[in-house]
Amino acid sequence: MSALWGIDNPNIKILDCSVRDGGLVNDHRFDLEFVQAVYRACAAAGVDYMEVGYKNSDRIFPRDANGAWKYCDEDDLRAVVGENPETGLKLSCMIDAEKSDWRTAVLPKEKSPLDLIRVAFYDYQVDEAVAMIDDAAQKGYEVCANLMAVTAVDESVIDRVLERLVETPTGTIVIVDSFGSLTPAQTEYLTQKYFRFANAAGKEVGMHAHNNMQLAFSNTLTSARCGATRLDASIGGLGRGAGNCPMELLLSVVNAKNYKLRPIIECLENALVPLRREIEWGPLPEYMLTGQFNQHPRAAIAARKEPETRDRFLALFDRLREKCEESK
Amino acid sequence: MSALWGIDNPNIKILDCSVRDGGLVNDHRFDLEFVQAVYRACAAAGVDYMEVGYKNSDRIFPRDANGAWKYCDEDDLRAVVGENPETGLKLSCMIDAEKSDWRTAVLPKEKSPLDLIRVAFYDYQVDEAVAMIDDAAQKGYEVCANLMAVTAVDESVIDRVLERLVETPTGTIVIVDSFGSLTPAQTEYLTQKYFRFANAAGKEVGMHAHNNMQLAFSNTLTSARCGATRLDASIGGLGRGAGNCPMELLLSVVNAKNYKLRPIIECLENALVPLRREIEWGPLPEYMLTGQFNQHPRAAIAARKEPETRDRFLALFDRLREKCEESK
Repeated sequence: MSALWGIDNPNIKILDCSVRDGGLVNDHRFDLEFVQAVYRACAAAGVDYMEVGYKNSDRIFPRDANGAWKYCDEDDLRAVVGENPETGLKLSCMIDAEKSDWRTAVLPKEKSPLDLIRVAFYDYQVDEAVAMIDDAAQKGYEVCANLMAVTAVDESVIDRVLERLVETPTGTIVIVDSFGSLTPAQTEYLTQKYFRFANAAGKEVGMHAHNNMQLAFSNTLTSARCGATRLDASIGGLGRGAGNCPMELLLSVVNAKNYKLRPIIECLENALVPLRREIEWGPLPEYMLTGQFNQHPRAAIAARKEPETRDRFLALFDRLREKCEESK
Repeated sequence: MSALWGIDNPNIKILDCSVRDGGLVNDHRFDLEFVQAVYRACAAAGVDYMEVGYKNSDRIFPRDANGAWKYCDEDDLRAVVGENPETGLKLSCMIDAEKSDWRTAVLPKEKSPLDLIRVAFYDYQVDEAVAMIDDAAQKGYEVCANLMAVTAVDESVIDRVLERLVETPTGTIVIVDSFGSLTPAQTEYLTQKYFRFANAAGKEVGMHAHNNMQLAFSNTLTSARCGATRLDASIGGLGRGAGNCPMELLLSVVNAKNYKLRPIIECLENALVPLRREIEWGPLPEYMLTGQFNQHPRAAIAARKEPETRDRFLALFDRLREKCEESK
């Protein structure tokens, strides 16, 4: 058997969300060296985009309780990337509906090293999301639209949101499996749906997977096979709860582009091993359980926090099952 | 979205290999309580088979360096299961070509609580494997044939082995991804191949996945979609190196049978959490690397053993890449 048959689509673009999604574990309190290490690794590996953090509001996230990457002020961005010259690595920030002063926080593109704005929203926030997309596009950015927690949304509502998004200037519509609940069959079905809408409007489909059921890498591959061309990953799978699709896995199977694995392995050793002594993430059983019950990981995060509730899988299982039966 | 679309084939049978494959981490030195905890959990969950260990030779594996589950003497089996009454859980042992005195070690079925003998062999051992299969079948057992390390075997050789196996009384032919190197596309291709051979001969196909690339669960699902009906899993993914497909994930997506997840979650908490303080397994970066380079995990196992080489991913990456380029 020849090893590693992989992704042959040359239009694939990979976005690193290590700092942005990983910051949900530690309130974005990464030091500058860590963010620079990720930046250098992504640039050397040929990764297409790095998402440096959020441009969210300090009215909602107080400055004294959060790190710089919650706001991504232009000065902080430039401390990492300068003017981001010549690397080929584009830069992204996420803005959350109802949590970002996006009208003022997002500067005109010519005043920022950013290239891409990703608009994250829940289905009931679609009106604001459309305004956010319009605003970012008007300011000169490439835009992605990220409908969050898609496994918790009725299919008819997903359809209505997609109908709205295809009318906007967003370039990409991203499948966001916030709860890490998508099975391979669901991933296939959803990607085909997103692709039908997006393709007819000349847009791309993206995939942002979580690893609760150890399916983040696999679901990302499945989406790519079904036409998704914008794939999220993070070094060491760093991300909230169970984490994301590991970059070191994804890069190794994209045959169509000349990504370099070695800089990512180097960053994994030099930056992620030390970080793991401070914070925890990955597909632990608690996160598996919230994923299986199609729930936000918050119950699992809370259970992992205290020694009395950590590794008490059965109590969490019983609570989640009870909640699930009540909601039926 | 409705949660957890899964496996709808009612012919699925699941085999627990926690003790057998997990024993490759600790030379099968599990205490009786651990093995009984796995047995009770599998019986209560409705798992179809539990593989208790190997029937390998104490000439090759000295008794003073290995636990009882390397040999599975009938007295040791009975200490766990008695006569295995009324549980519905069938029992399996594995025998390795060139490492088992199978002619004498495998008793006639009426003298043993075992139901299934699984014959593990490399491609060059196929003659002995056929004799082992014949012997076990003649003694009254159901038989599985496990061609190991399939990703290291040329496809023409796989075909020749399959041609031999379909002529034997084995009931199942198992795809064994010993190196954890199979991608989803390879898994699909291989399962279809195995299924063509097996189905024409009235046999079933099995899947034994390793988790080096965090694909054990996903590849098991892919195989099931392509016709495999005999699926291996282990509680907590316990198994050599990166481990196997986690039972707690697999059971949750088999809709067609009424498996119970709760006893497995209980065992995960009560037996696997304590075990993890003693031994290490799971999809750590070192195992990912050997999987990506389609190599036996031994280099990763060695690297994890010593503090000086543990978490030194870059050195291992460079060594594996060099070896890979030399072999071209």
